Amino acid sequence: MNLKKGSHNCITDIAGVQIGHVTLYEKLDEEQTICTGVTAILPHKGNLFRHKVHAGSAVLNGFGKTAGLVQINELGLVESPIMLTNTFSVGSVWQGTLDYMLDTTEEIGDTTSSINIVVGECNDSYLNTARYPAIKPEHAVKAIKSASTSPVAEGSVGAGKGMVCFGYKGGIGTASRIVSHKSINYQIGGIVLSNFGKRGDALFARWEPVQQDTPDGSIMMILATDAPLLERQLQRLAKRCAAGLGRTGSQLANGSGDIAIVFSTANKVPHATDSYTQTVDYLRDDHPLMNQLFQAVVEIIEESVIRSLQMAETTEGRKGRIVTKAPL
Amino acid sequence: MNLKKGSHNCITDIAGVQIGHVTLYEKLDEEQTICTGVTAILPHKGNLFRHKVHAGSAVLNGFGKTAGLVQINELGLVESPIMLTNTFSVGSVWQGTLDYMLDTTEEIGDTTSSINIVVGECNDSYLNTARYPAIKPEHAVKAIKSASTSPVAEGSVGAGKGMVCFGYKGGIGTASRIVSHKSINYQIGGIVLSNFGKRGDALFARWEPVQQDTPDGSIMMILATDAPLLERQLQRLAKRCAAGLGRTGSQLANGSGDIAIVFSTANKVPHATDSYTQTVDYLRDDHPLMNQLFQAVVEIIEESVIRSLQMAETTEGRKGRIVTKAPL
Amino acid sequence: MNLKKGSHNCITDIAGVQIGHVTLYEKLDEEQTICTGVTAILPHKGNLFRHKVHAGSAVLNGFGKTAGLVQINELGLVESPIMLTNTFSVGSVWQGTLDYMLDTTEEIGDTTSSINIVVGECNDSYLNTARYPAIKPEHAVKAIKSASTSPVAEGSVGAGKGMVCFGYKGGIGTASRIVSHKSINYQIGGIVLSNFGKRGDALFARWEPVQQDTPDGSIMMILATDAPLLERQLQRLAKRCAAGLGRTGSQLANGSGDIAIVFSTANKVPHATDSYTQTVDYLRDDHPLMNQLFQAVVEIIEESVIRSLQMAETTEGRKGRIVTKAPL
Amino acid sequence: MNLKKGSHNCITDIAGVQIGHVTLYEKLDEEQTICTGVTAILPHKGNLFRHKVHAGSAVLNGFGKTAGLVQINELGLVESPIMLTNTFSVGSVWQGTLDYMLDTTEEIGDTTSSINIVVGECNDSYLNTARYPAIKPEHAVKAIKSASTSPVAEGSVGAGKGMVCFGYKGGIGTASRIVSHKSINYQIGGIVLSNFGKRGDALFARWEPVQQDTPDGSIMMILATDAPLLERQLQRLAKRCAAGLGRTGSQLANGSGDIAIVFSTANKVPHATDSYTQTVDYLRDDHPLMNQLFQAVVEIIEESVIRSLQMAETTEGRKGRIVTKAPL
Repeated sequence: MNLKKGSHNCITDIAGVQIGHVTLYEKLDEEQTICTGVTAILPHKGNLFRHKVHAGSAVLNGFGKTAGLVQINELGLVESPIMLTNTFSVGSVWQGTLDYMLDTTEEIGDTTSSINIVVGECNDSYLNTARYPAIKPEHAVKAIKSASTSPVAEGSVGAGKGMVCFGYKGGIGTASRIVSHKSINYQIGGIVLSNFGKRGDALFARWEPVQQDTPDGSIMMILATDAPLLERQLQRLAKRCAAGLGRTGSQLANGSGDIAIVFSTANKVPHATDSYTQTVDYLRDDHPLMNQLFQAVVEIIEESVIRSLQMAETTEGRKGRIVTKAPL
Repeated sequence: MNLKKGSHNCITDIAGVQIGHVTLYEKLDEEQTICTGVTAILPHKGNLFRHKVHAGSAVLNGFGKTAGLVQINELGLVESPIMLTNTFSVGSVWQGTLDYMLDTTEEIGDTTSSINIVVGECNDSYLNTARYPAIKPEHAVKAIKSASTSPVAEGSVGAGKGMVCFGYKGGIGTASRIVSHKSINYQIGGIVLSNFGKRGDALFARWEPVQQDTPDGSIMMILATDAPLLERQLQRLAKRCAAGLGRTGSQLANGSGDIAIVFSTANKVPHATDSYTQTVDYLRDDHPLMNQLFQAVVEIIEESVIRSLQMAETTEGRKGRIVTKAPL
Repeated sequence: MNLKKGSHNCITDIAGVQIGHVTLYEKLDEEQTICTGVTAILPHKGNLFRHKVHAGSAVLNGFGKTAGLVQINELGLVESPIMLTNTFSVGSVWQGTLDYMLDTTEEIGDTTSSINIVVGECNDSYLNTARYPAIKPEHAVKAIKSASTSPVAEGSVGAGKGMVCFGYKGGIGTASRIVSHKSINYQIGGIVLSNFGKRGDALFARWEPVQQDTPDGSIMMILATDAPLLERQLQRLAKRCAAGLGRTGSQLANGSGDIAIVFSTANKVPHATDSYTQTVDYLRDDHPLMNQLFQAVVEIIEESVIRSLQMAETTEGRKGRIVTKAPL
Repeated sequence: MNLKKGSHNCITDIAGVQIGHVTLYEKLDEEQTICTGVTAILPHKGNLFRHKVHAGSAVLNGFGKTAGLVQINELGLVESPIMLTNTFSVGSVWQGTLDYMLDTTEEIGDTTSSINIVVGECNDSYLNTARYPAIKPEHAVKAIKSASTSPVAEGSVGAGKGMVCFGYKGGIGTASRIVSHKSINYQIGGIVLSNFGKRGDALFARWEPVQQDTPDGSIMMILATDAPLLERQLQRLAKRCAAGLGRTGSQLANGSGDIAIVFSTANKVPHATDSYTQTVDYLRDDHPLMNQLFQAVVEIIEESVIRSLQMAETTEGRKGRIVTKAPL
């Protein structure tokens, strides 16, 4: 079974979702190269703190540094942009995202409570001089401000600039699916930051194994849907990303941070309201559309990984290392 | 990458692991058929309560009734046979397994503490008259007593008698792998009870989708290894089963209990001892053998599912329903 | 702050909740005594499978054998009575509860899916000859059928017959609270099966430590509320039971199964329906009533434990052991 | 039962553990005051990345922003200082801690993998102008470099400078215990950052409830022991902090980040080694010392909270707000 793709086969097919990239590339000297970036995912066009979205996460393998999952798990909500970057820039991007949210939301930390910032990462230190702090808080702000609902640039862009996947150039990939039953239609889309795998592991290509000196790597997977789902159900979707990774050939290696976050744009939860209750209309777990959504997650992860390779370009990084575009 | 298979490609390749089946089949009348069974997995040949093994579990989808996971998660140990049966026989098999352990271990519940019984299940009510309580505690005892280290009978046998997988006859499957690095070798094997999937989902065959009236089904996955692993590491292995399922085409459907338990035979933990500490020598997480073990889990799950189909036979169950052997 | 108690300070203050006890006591010979029982908690008066309730659980310490949590965690629903008994009778009570549900719900396992049975336990083998299988499936059926909305019998009754708490006679205790804000009122109540603690640990009494040969023991905690809460929120309530235990003096000992299940009667979820979505109106997490509910959980657990002691009676069990009523 | 206190009743009673504080206080204008800080906890005196310690965590309530738990949970290790600060300075302190680790460990991000930074927080925005980014990365570095094994300064110091607890001035508190059995002795100590509670909730004092406009607040709890424990066992200790909070009167309020991290100094795990296995000698779960350690956790949390109040001083913060020292 293959589900129908969304109109642009892109996470921005889900109405309101916006993606922004900032890409940094600079040869510092013979040895050192800045080859990295930031990617911002905005669940909707309004103020994300004032109107939160339901979300769930899954840590499929936890050799990762993602910040913000504790509160997502407790409250089932995302209230900030979801940011992706390199491993050593989590602090910087966290700071920039906070700066942006404070600038646009004067009540945070003054008359109301704190805000939960979400930053995921993969380790691009094979190509990028990661010890050099190239990414500054303002790059996070710029990625957020440049976010748009247009089809997403993929491959060696944004946080994907320095990533390596199956021994070829990886990075950003996206895909989307439409699920439908009778007259009901929902859309679901995903974006991945791919940075894992040995060449011989790929199931979608027949590549000879080579000796690779890249570390185990990681993958960040962010999905959005307009299906009305509770946080528990979004967690269920997040867990299905493991099956999608399995289809690519991944075994979720030891040194990998394989982390998924899924949010729904269907129900917004206001930060402040006069009502003491919240009403939500959610899809029943036993409805056929739920299994279609699970299937969609699996397909989206598999295809997004492949696209992250297809859309990437051969890249030279630190120490003169060159990672080539995959023959796909 | 494909790892080397164990000598019999079977979970009993891991020294000491024993499997026993009890199969029940009887046409009760025109409408009703008993078509079910029990499978016992014994981690070693000694008294399992007095010498426990390290274990970890993962609930990949929790529409299931497996008993015993609470204590496995807290203490990281298995202290009884691991039993598989149909959904409505969890109580009966739990009782029989307790009976067996009490009979063979006089101190339990008298001078020492309680015992944790582990029973997993899949729903065979498409073929089996599940509402009829055919399985009695003594069937569990018989499955345990008949367990042997011989290569495992597969297909429509034991708990697998009434199971349906990808719309064909499923049931018991097994596979094993050898991981090696320099002079170090470990073995790992698995046994599955397969009962999930729609025909068109399979990735290992090209089958036309058909209208299926079987429910979502489930899969139980039990793995054994002689690699010296801590409970945390065994949990990591258990989580990789999701990638193995993904490779078969599963999307871990809503109504599925997709549950994995992995144990290691390398270190036995005595129930009673004079020592106040326990010494364990465990494989480092960053050693290349760990990623090989992860890969082995993925391959074993995929192959065990396929074998459960290949080794099954066309079976007639209740209401005259016939599930055919897969064309594999 | 102490919250107002419910009209009977009892879990049955929550409309529709019913409790049933079956108590077994028989001196078999000089050495052996049956001193045990079964307690059934029914969330409402209708068919529990056809109209499920939202539920959450927390395993505060997992040296326990509770069956049924896997599916509660996945789907956030309870669809059967919640049963309490002794450790070795989980299988028997599981079977009896299944029998009851099959008898009253003909579609289970025939035209529709399986059912998730929930059985919790504590180890009463200090007083009860636990190795003797006194509890049969029909005792579970009897406990369910005898359940009523009347104020609950407490102390050495039902599953509490053989339990020991802080070295005195423990067992069943209950308490309830009313939370209110402006014109909104909710009720919450709990029932515990107390079987833990050393005498010197109690914070609610000044008892001299004595040499105790009882094992670490356990406590099962079941709470019901008419506040409209999602499964995630009910999990949050369940986790607060640890603070309630802390107030009694418990340190959640190693050998203890300290397990909480909380359900809400406010929203029933039909098993079958024509609607593809489910609408739920739930209390906002940041509403003052939520903190009151958290406080109520803490108070209910503390008071239920104390009441389980106050309402118990001196009991003679196996090997001539006598556990006395606490001087409270 | 009350356990014996350590020689200084301080987390630094555990050999090698070091604590460093940086405190910032400055009245910016009539309205705004910097009243915050950073506290660093170093598990031992060597390079923390090259020699890691076993660790476990528990999120008792997850309305918090702690970074670094994902990897602790996966690998059971801490490989950096554990940092505490205010909510909005997580990014800054994360960056400073990374800077320090990169400066002292040249292989990170170059020839070897990434590093996991751990930063916990409470919200001091009642007294502190949290929107003003007073804390810079260098303050984190300074806190680390100033860390010592001396008895810890408590109260309104370091990250505790602006915290409020039970409506009085809170902040840093510490305590320690000795557990012993025959000739075996272990030490365990804790440090808390207290920032929660309504006045009328306290169980250790009889305070009149007052109208409080402080938010729900949070508490970070870090414990260290020289008992040889696995990560699973350290998680068990971490979960017992909930019972300790319960004894103070906490109900773990909705808006609270109640998070515990526990590490053991007994076994160091080298980042790089020639050995493919790791040997660990750990305390058996059923040894009486384990229950003593659980009891110690409960007592340490309760006493540390009380000490954080006793050692604090009346403090004036932003908007002229004055939080007084508790009458203890």
